[in-house]
Amino acid sequence: MSLQNPVFIPGPTNMPEHLRRACDLPTIDHRSAGFPILLASARSGVQSIIKSRDAEVFIFPSTGTGGWETALANTLVPGDTVLAVRNGMFSHKWIKMCRDLGLNVVMTEVAWGEGFPADWAEEQLAADTAHEIKAVLVTHNETATGVTSNVADVRKALDAASHPALLLVDGVSSIACMEFRFDDWGVDVAVTGSQKGFMLPAGLGIVAFSRKAMKETEQGGLPRGYFNLQDMATATAAGGYPYTPSYGMLNGLNEACGMLLEEGLENVFARHNRIASGGRAAVRAWALEVCAARPELYSDTVTAIRVPEGFDANRIVSHAETAYGMSFGAGLGDVAGKVFRIGHLGSLTDAMTLSGIATVEMVMVDLGLDITFGSGVAAAQAAYQVGKTEKFLEAAE
Amino acid sequence: MSLQNPVFIPGPTNMPEHLRRACDLPTIDHRSAGFPILLASARSGVQSIIKSRDAEVFIFPSTGTGGWETALANTLVPGDTVLAVRNGMFSHKWIKMCRDLGLNVVMTEVAWGEGFPADWAEEQLAADTAHEIKAVLVTHNETATGVTSNVADVRKALDAASHPALLLVDGVSSIACMEFRFDDWGVDVAVTGSQKGFMLPAGLGIVAFSRKAMKETEQGGLPRGYFNLQDMATATAAGGYPYTPSYGMLNGLNEACGMLLEEGLENVFARHNRIASGGRAAVRAWALEVCAARPELYSDTVTAIRVPEGFDANRIVSHAETAYGMSFGAGLGDVAGKVFRIGHLGSLTDAMTLSGIATVEMVMVDLGLDITFGSGVAAAQAAYQVGKTEKFLEAAE
Amino acid sequence: MSLQNPVFIPGPTNMPEHLRRACDLPTIDHRSAGFPILLASARSGVQSIIKSRDAEVFIFPSTGTGGWETALANTLVPGDTVLAVRNGMFSHKWIKMCRDLGLNVVMTEVAWGEGFPADWAEEQLAADTAHEIKAVLVTHNETATGVTSNVADVRKALDAASHPALLLVDGVSSIACMEFRFDDWGVDVAVTGSQKGFMLPAGLGIVAFSRKAMKETEQGGLPRGYFNLQDMATATAAGGYPYTPSYGMLNGLNEACGMLLEEGLENVFARHNRIASGGRAAVRAWALEVCAARPELYSDTVTAIRVPEGFDANRIVSHAETAYGMSFGAGLGDVAGKVFRIGHLGSLTDAMTLSGIATVEMVMVDLGLDITFGSGVAAAQAAYQVGKTEKFLEAAE
Amino acid sequence: MSLQNPVFIPGPTNMPEHLRRACDLPTIDHRSAGFPILLASARSGVQSIIKSRDAEVFIFPSTGTGGWETALANTLVPGDTVLAVRNGMFSHKWIKMCRDLGLNVVMTEVAWGEGFPADWAEEQLAADTAHEIKAVLVTHNETATGVTSNVADVRKALDAASHPALLLVDGVSSIACMEFRFDDWGVDVAVTGSQKGFMLPAGLGIVAFSRKAMKETEQGGLPRGYFNLQDMATATAAGGYPYTPSYGMLNGLNEACGMLLEEGLENVFARHNRIASGGRAAVRAWALEVCAARPELYSDTVTAIRVPEGFDANRIVSHAETAYGMSFGAGLGDVAGKVFRIGHLGSLTDAMTLSGIATVEMVMVDLGLDITFGSGVAAAQAAYQVGKTEKFLEAAE
Repeated sequence: MSLQNPVFIPGPTNMPEHLRRACDLPTIDHRSAGFPILLASARSGVQSIIKSRDAEVFIFPSTGTGGWETALANTLVPGDTVLAVRNGMFSHKWIKMCRDLGLNVVMTEVAWGEGFPADWAEEQLAADTAHEIKAVLVTHNETATGVTSNVADVRKALDAASHPALLLVDGVSSIACMEFRFDDWGVDVAVTGSQKGFMLPAGLGIVAFSRKAMKETEQGGLPRGYFNLQDMATATAAGGYPYTPSYGMLNGLNEACGMLLEEGLENVFARHNRIASGGRAAVRAWALEVCAARPELYSDTVTAIRVPEGFDANRIVSHAETAYGMSFGAGLGDVAGKVFRIGHLGSLTDAMTLSGIATVEMVMVDLGLDITFGSGVAAAQAAYQVGKTEKFLEAAE
Repeated sequence: MSLQNPVFIPGPTNMPEHLRRACDLPTIDHRSAGFPILLASARSGVQSIIKSRDAEVFIFPSTGTGGWETALANTLVPGDTVLAVRNGMFSHKWIKMCRDLGLNVVMTEVAWGEGFPADWAEEQLAADTAHEIKAVLVTHNETATGVTSNVADVRKALDAASHPALLLVDGVSSIACMEFRFDDWGVDVAVTGSQKGFMLPAGLGIVAFSRKAMKETEQGGLPRGYFNLQDMATATAAGGYPYTPSYGMLNGLNEACGMLLEEGLENVFARHNRIASGGRAAVRAWALEVCAARPELYSDTVTAIRVPEGFDANRIVSHAETAYGMSFGAGLGDVAGKVFRIGHLGSLTDAMTLSGIATVEMVMVDLGLDITFGSGVAAAQAAYQVGKTEKFLEAAE
Repeated sequence: MSLQNPVFIPGPTNMPEHLRRACDLPTIDHRSAGFPILLASARSGVQSIIKSRDAEVFIFPSTGTGGWETALANTLVPGDTVLAVRNGMFSHKWIKMCRDLGLNVVMTEVAWGEGFPADWAEEQLAADTAHEIKAVLVTHNETATGVTSNVADVRKALDAASHPALLLVDGVSSIACMEFRFDDWGVDVAVTGSQKGFMLPAGLGIVAFSRKAMKETEQGGLPRGYFNLQDMATATAAGGYPYTPSYGMLNGLNEACGMLLEEGLENVFARHNRIASGGRAAVRAWALEVCAARPELYSDTVTAIRVPEGFDANRIVSHAETAYGMSFGAGLGDVAGKVFRIGHLGSLTDAMTLSGIATVEMVMVDLGLDITFGSGVAAAQAAYQVGKTEKFLEAAE
Repeated sequence: MSLQNPVFIPGPTNMPEHLRRACDLPTIDHRSAGFPILLASARSGVQSIIKSRDAEVFIFPSTGTGGWETALANTLVPGDTVLAVRNGMFSHKWIKMCRDLGLNVVMTEVAWGEGFPADWAEEQLAADTAHEIKAVLVTHNETATGVTSNVADVRKALDAASHPALLLVDGVSSIACMEFRFDDWGVDVAVTGSQKGFMLPAGLGIVAFSRKAMKETEQGGLPRGYFNLQDMATATAAGGYPYTPSYGMLNGLNEACGMLLEEGLENVFARHNRIASGGRAAVRAWALEVCAARPELYSDTVTAIRVPEGFDANRIVSHAETAYGMSFGAGLGDVAGKVFRIGHLGSLTDAMTLSGIATVEMVMVDLGLDITFGSGVAAAQAAYQVGKTEKFLEAAE
């Protein structure tokens, strides 16, 4: 591992200097006057980033996984039924958690590389006239396969079936990188973490609850302690925490929201799309295939790349680390050994991305794959080149 | 708030430069080769600090409160009975969590300022011939009152009653500051966090499980997801995590253990005792009283100081912050307004402590209390003065 | 040495978190677009702090000593005569430099503890009808003795004698801490460094030249390379440097100016005065004497304290370091062993200062001096106590 | 400017995390016990890096330019003659300094792209039977042209002429990157700075003096103050400084030496050579030419690249900064507008270098030069590829 090279794992992402410093504070009393102001600002920042006017945002010292539990434990009661789809390692794990917590899961399996089948969901919801299904779980961006599902379509399915189930969305590897419209999509709980689009270390589980979801937290819930949203909501309303918060991480989150909003969300999303496009162009130039089944499923935060049949994709990841000090993501679960992943989210420049693509080329050549040096780089350069953009033409005037 | 003054809250504590840096790492792939080595080292460091040969240590991205839940959710099943004592805000909260998680609590209330009554526990355990009581909960150091209970006595009570209940100990504000003998005291689960004796930011819930407690995790447990110890144990054994760890915080913990062990645990404990003694001497010089009922209950990490009848102790805390930019702890729960607290744990020098004592004197004089400038400082100086110690005499030779 | 205790040397001073970070930048191209903006801002900031409208400020990668050389080498030619006073180690060293550089020095010696005798200067200047004296050198604040001289009086002496000599002022340990009126006092060159009032590490020699002094740089000068002001002025005008600047240090200087101006210069000066007053009150309480001969000479940045006859003051400095991990200043030159010094400049709070005073008390008691614990602290507390100030009374309303 | 992209200016270089932290220390008393130890260690580290057993190393708060002055001002007297060659901007500036300081320069001009002509020097020295020439000045690596001269050949010329002149070598952009044999080459003064091979911010001028050169410092010298080596040597011998040192920068230098020696000097040099070779391969692939006239002059720290006749090379530098946030070096002096420069020294990985090469390709294509995307990258990848190296073959076994 080199501490100088960028990382290309799909989170934790590369961190801007500014955010590392925002997190690294001297000890400040979390009961002093500045804390409630910081907390309110961070919560409001997250709200803006998920494009919500009045979602209630809560921030737990944990991870996105803690956010999953918070979503479930505060809106459902033991034995409740949820609707879910397994299309990658992270959807798989959320389903496992549902079962561990005593929920009943109605699910379907789709190929890893496919997205959430909204039509299937619509059928299930329409058939559920007794409204047994209390929640629909969607993994917005399946980090294991580089597949982005269409949340708006799931909302349409719910509406088409006039079904009152809550819409719980895992946005861990999408929020703050890609369009996420909490209000417009009628999301009830969105879950994310600090270490992806927010460009921070791992350590925060971030959830946003709709009014409808907040109402559910008042009635029952699963047995819960640390992730008890009512305790958290009460403390938050008083500008505090039910236990000791990480002042630094909250400060980091607040600054991250500020950076993202200052860049402009649409610019942030466009940047992720441009960088991802370059990566996909490289994959095409290598005559390889991405794991995502169709262009509309392509993720702008992570690309899973299928290697030739019979070749162990993990060799790429380990050779890159050992020989070039660069980290990429391995395949997980059903696609272990079949894909490797390039994380291209968070704080990343075109130049940094090119160093990742160039390094992967050396790795693949080293390992005997039929790759031409510079081929993927050239394809990405064409995508990143400023010379053809209006920006350049203007500047040249 | 001044960022230059030390803090005197009972956690998060002042952080040494070295540990802030250990936490503030650039992004490192937690699946790269260095991580398992770091994790093993941090776990082993914690083991040494709690003086255990083979406790299994696990580190969650959460806080000590998450550690409480981990202790309960993995060793008990719904409806199990636990024995507990309420003698301050933190013991109170742990009891509340037990109830929220569906456990049955047999408890007693003692005055806030008293410790855990081992004789009462022994009676209860002896009477429980059916062994309904599955666990005894002890708050080693009640941070709200500055009271340290005697864990060894509780172990004796269990042994005297030949009772198989697990001994669960909250060591959040004692571990790494005061003597804690996991093995000798027969502790089954010890709980702590990163932001006290380990001198780190909040963000880690640290637990240590005895073999007996580990065995309990295999059979049932409460419904649990994030704090599922079996998932954590499996991942830990493979050198990884069930979700994304905070590499920086783990590195910080590892370095903290290294610092403490290099200083020498007995030296660390002696330093805490010396600093605390100075603080208590100041209290006597002010003709005030500490909250802890008797000398053997005095905490070496936090001192709660009773203010004169009719005076609101919170004014001291808020005036110190507003006028002098220094943070102290307020009274909580039953002693709110009746005490203020000086946290003197973690990374603190005699000189820093004197600045706290001198500042409190100015605060009290400002607020009209009958305090003589320099009186508490002089008492503490006499406790800190090197001139009377062997160290000085040796150096002078 | 403890890294946690404040330092009480008369520079480098304690550094605010914010400034440490401002200095610690990643590599930024000093020929990129941001550099000229930063440089202009830092120069303008220094101008404001010395209360000048149009002094030309230049910043050399060196120290205040380099600033001395810059002042001399660019305004004088070999064999020129300067007028100077020796009243401490730093005035002594500047005089030595004059001689090493081939200048003729007309000087007087006064007791270490005395200030610059403006009346003597006036006599010399009046007698110098041939205007052989080309420059008068004043050490505004003699760091070795804690003596502040009156620069305005020296200007009056020059004016009274209608003498055209340049007024060169060493403001290393005064600027940014005490009133310094470049324009009003008719200063021609002011010299300072980064590590005192600017609260930065050592590494910058900062000079400000009046128009008259700038004119002198055009004709001759001493042989000079690195400190050639014309090269520096040409490069500065183009937004650059004649060699590689320290981007981080310049950024630190710029931020330091921002901090000082935001606090308000009069507030900064008042803070230094208040903190210094507390220190002097402590000295009186100990029945010791300061080195400065009279109250109007008392320095607000450093206090040199005389120890009883026959006692070696260096023992205080070394025992403080060894036994308590705290740094104070030793006596230098003529007062070596006779005084120790408390630096109380830069970024310092009342609470930090009290820790220094309390520690010195322990040191002196350890070493057998007749000092009562808490006596100096109590005197300082009375000076620092907010309770008697308007600020407190207002807040209390 | 992006703070995330590496810089490709020929210094200051990219800084490893470890060294940034080493420089960014809290205030430590430079008169406390640790300082002499640190200073001795840093001096010894520099000695090892220049492969000298007993050169006296001194470290000034300044830059390499201050080192030039130190070399001249302490070994020569006014009117002395030095022999020098002008083959780029930095040799040009050193010559200018000689003249400004009152020295007589015997020089020759060679094409910018040529090295130091040892045969010409030998002729001059042989002809100088009166030994008027007191020093020969060699710019080991001319940063403006990417030309490395052969110092050993200059030593041979001196020896062939049996001439006693001192050999003064500017190693600013070579030392710690390329072979530098102080003892074997009979160097008398070597000059360098902190911001190149030592991977630190600018701010230190570092000089090494042979015994012979030390002897010269005792007799006369130019008028000098700040750079007076006798004052520095006296203070250094006592473990201190004649003025306030930058503790952090010295600590950084010490750690940098440690890092370099741990990597192994031969490995450091080989790394620089490998990275430089890749850059030169890219230049060939682009059908461009380097400024250095012949392969034996190629610099391993900086490559100056000639652009096609009629094209302004500065456009590359400014477009790279504006459009891609990446910094390269512009042409200076005689080659301004004719070359641009890639600095590839200090802390740099192959992957980082590839990002620079790929970015320059986009820049050149944007500006209409006839460059094929990926062509230079592919050439560099072939140079960097681990797959053909023994290291890979071993690892593969």
